[in-house]
Amino acid sequence: MPKFMDVHRGFVGVTAEQLQEAHDADLKVEGEEGVHFERAWLDPKSGLVFCLSEGPSAEAVQRVHEKAGHPADEIHQVDIEV
Amino acid sequence: MPKFMDVHRGFVGVTAEQLQEAHDADLKVEGEEGVHFERAWLDPKSGLVFCLSEGPSAEAVQRVHEKAGHPADEIHQVDIEV
Repeated sequence: MPKFMDVHRGFVGVTAEQLQEAHDADLKVEGEEGVHFERAWLDPKSGLVFCLSEGPSAEAVQRVHEKAGHPADEIHQVDIEV
Repeated sequence: MPKFMDVHRGFVGVTAEQLQEAHDADLKVEGEEGVHFERAWLDPKSGLVFCLSEGPSAEAVQRVHEKAGHPADEIHQVDIEV
């Protein structure tokens, strides 16, 4: 199954609790799209969030984020990992 | 120790072997700066590489990448992780 790294902008000042809530919203609906979100990292100063997931397609990853209320700004299929 | 996600652009068409070589070059010199690169992910279509590391500062992370011959385009301190 392909892996994806997606990027969200605008999360300046977001707390750990708020990021956990957003991540939990993804986990709640991800099964409908065959996606699994593994981890997410936030830089609260620049407001960037990086989410690592696996799933059938970038479109499926985006549908999960849309259903959870926070569509991604970029989704990259990371076919190579070290 | 803070964690960092850095982003490199321009790695279009780079292979797994080439990414491994670049990652190995980081690992070879990272100790001089007290940095450790954990993982890296590449989208060979968009040419973006995401590197996850921990270290004392973004500057230290960049010095490792510079010594290895591939300075990062962005370095984000990811203080929050889920």
